[in-house]
Amino acid sequence: MDEFNLIENIKQKYYRESTLVKGIGDDAAVFNQNNQSIVTAVDTFVENVHFIKNKTMSAKNIGYRCLAANISDIAAMGAKPKFYLVSVVIPCNWKEYEVLNVFAGLDDLAKQYNMDLIGGDTVSGTEFVLSITVIGYVAKEKIRYRSNAKVNDIVFVTGSLGDAAVGLEILLNDLEIENKNYFIQRHQKPSPNVLFSNAIKPIDRVCLNDISDGISSELNEIAKASKVSIMIEDELVPIKKELKKLTEEQINTFKYTGGEDFELVGTTSKENWLKIKEIIKPFNVDVTEIGRVIESKNDQVYLNSINKILKPNGYIHLK
Amino acid sequence: MDEFNLIENIKQKYYRESTLVKGIGDDAAVFNQNNQSIVTAVDTFVENVHFIKNKTMSAKNIGYRCLAANISDIAAMGAKPKFYLVSVVIPCNWKEYEVLNVFAGLDDLAKQYNMDLIGGDTVSGTEFVLSITVIGYVAKEKIRYRSNAKVNDIVFVTGSLGDAAVGLEILLNDLEIENKNYFIQRHQKPSPNVLFSNAIKPIDRVCLNDISDGISSELNEIAKASKVSIMIEDELVPIKKELKKLTEEQINTFKYTGGEDFELVGTTSKENWLKIKEIIKPFNVDVTEIGRVIESKNDQVYLNSINKILKPNGYIHLK
Repeated sequence: MDEFNLIENIKQKYYRESTLVKGIGDDAAVFNQNNQSIVTAVDTFVENVHFIKNKTMSAKNIGYRCLAANISDIAAMGAKPKFYLVSVVIPCNWKEYEVLNVFAGLDDLAKQYNMDLIGGDTVSGTEFVLSITVIGYVAKEKIRYRSNAKVNDIVFVTGSLGDAAVGLEILLNDLEIENKNYFIQRHQKPSPNVLFSNAIKPIDRVCLNDISDGISSELNEIAKASKVSIMIEDELVPIKKELKKLTEEQINTFKYTGGEDFELVGTTSKENWLKIKEIIKPFNVDVTEIGRVIESKNDQVYLNSINKILKPNGYIHLK
Repeated sequence: MDEFNLIENIKQKYYRESTLVKGIGDDAAVFNQNNQSIVTAVDTFVENVHFIKNKTMSAKNIGYRCLAANISDIAAMGAKPKFYLVSVVIPCNWKEYEVLNVFAGLDDLAKQYNMDLIGGDTVSGTEFVLSITVIGYVAKEKIRYRSNAKVNDIVFVTGSLGDAAVGLEILLNDLEIENKNYFIQRHQKPSPNVLFSNAIKPIDRVCLNDISDGISSELNEIAKASKVSIMIEDELVPIKKELKKLTEEQINTFKYTGGEDFELVGTTSKENWLKIKEIIKPFNVDVTEIGRVIESKNDQVYLNSINKILKPNGYIHLK
């Protein structure tokens, strides 16, 4: 079953409640209470699909990593994460201390953002499933929709890409690369970029998307939602120097489709881009200009020239 | 692993966010935005634990029933359900039309309450899991905490008890009883009592709990949270006449521990109780007085006399 197809099928044709601003179709849903907007999103993590216990992740990593994905969705809306609810399906072969470690991992990250665990449900089953709903706050006029991109915007990305995917490849298939521990950490304990999202609050218009499925997918989502095209300069897309020793095919795969780095990709006007670079100077955050928003030809993402199309799945197609 | 024990272990010792009013420990969590309170709860439904597909429930029933449990939590806080987010784990042996039917069942109930599906996550796995987070609104001063009970309050319950458990017993073990279809419907398509919860909005103080685990468990939760004891009159507890032909043991089991009826049990002052009876006259809702709140002796629930204790699991213990 195709996930995107399913979502299209189950998405309501119209919404019934007047306080709702955004339903399905961005990093999180948005509803209003006076001048405050409340954002909420859900992420689910399944054993042997998203992780292999004690091979790719410890129990503590599992909690940490799943909440990181949720917080990243909230950061990508420009909001501050506040609360989370947890549903957990526990198989009988899981020990109590392991389950408690999952929750310890959740709290490790939650306390960094002063977040509270406010509800949950624990049930038995045959397969470990962790599902988290996260709730955050943002001022109404500062929501960072993926439909906010405009022609001539600068396209930027935080951090470096493909690190988490490299980490997973080391754990699963013994990928040979320097600094293995760095990459493994980026897979097991990714840092959602709340710091950046929060720092750029003064900026009036920003389009943001978090990189959960790989930047090729996220850029295509922005192009589609904003009805624009995007031109990316391949050599500007930031990767760690260790990756440069891999084959070109490996590099492209990690860089464009390696998701779960939970960095942010976005667009803003040239004026705002200069302001952003000033604002983040005091912080330990890397942000790199990687391209431009251009007039739309079918809401495409191009690589270096209009003869090379970057598809959502990372496939580079020559016209 | 004991679910209640686990929850005690993972519950935060204190909460970090100032807008939070109630974390874990009631039917739903509560946080404030100006004069509005927002309530939220999560419920999870697992194949072969909570249902057997096409034996106890159709795919449509599964969606309907899972959302009913969530809405019931919101009704038990005195709130109106507004939004829901869905996490679904889909095994490869489930057909696409079955998954779509689950969502059709969700929407069947959602549209009765003008609710919107605003987010979700769909992932693959080996076992079908449906986890729903629901969000509702309530005026700050009208939240129906389970800690609201006071000595001398009337204890009341809506509808009749044990119906859903009888329905399940018919489906699983061919229980012999009249009106089988009625009981099966009560298991497969239970009605959360939003109508009652909403109708009694004018009443200043009400304690409410929804009956998901059986009334013995819910009454003990109220006694503990409100630091009171409760005296129930066994013969007043409402059951359908068809149940009366069963053995005393069967009747007690269905009546006191048969959960998932999603009726409401509550307490309020004698004055308010008279008002409630007036208010609900125009509606097709049954509410029955079943006992009194009394001075606490260890926050117990008694049955007919202080010599008979009703334990959370329904066990009737003679002192």
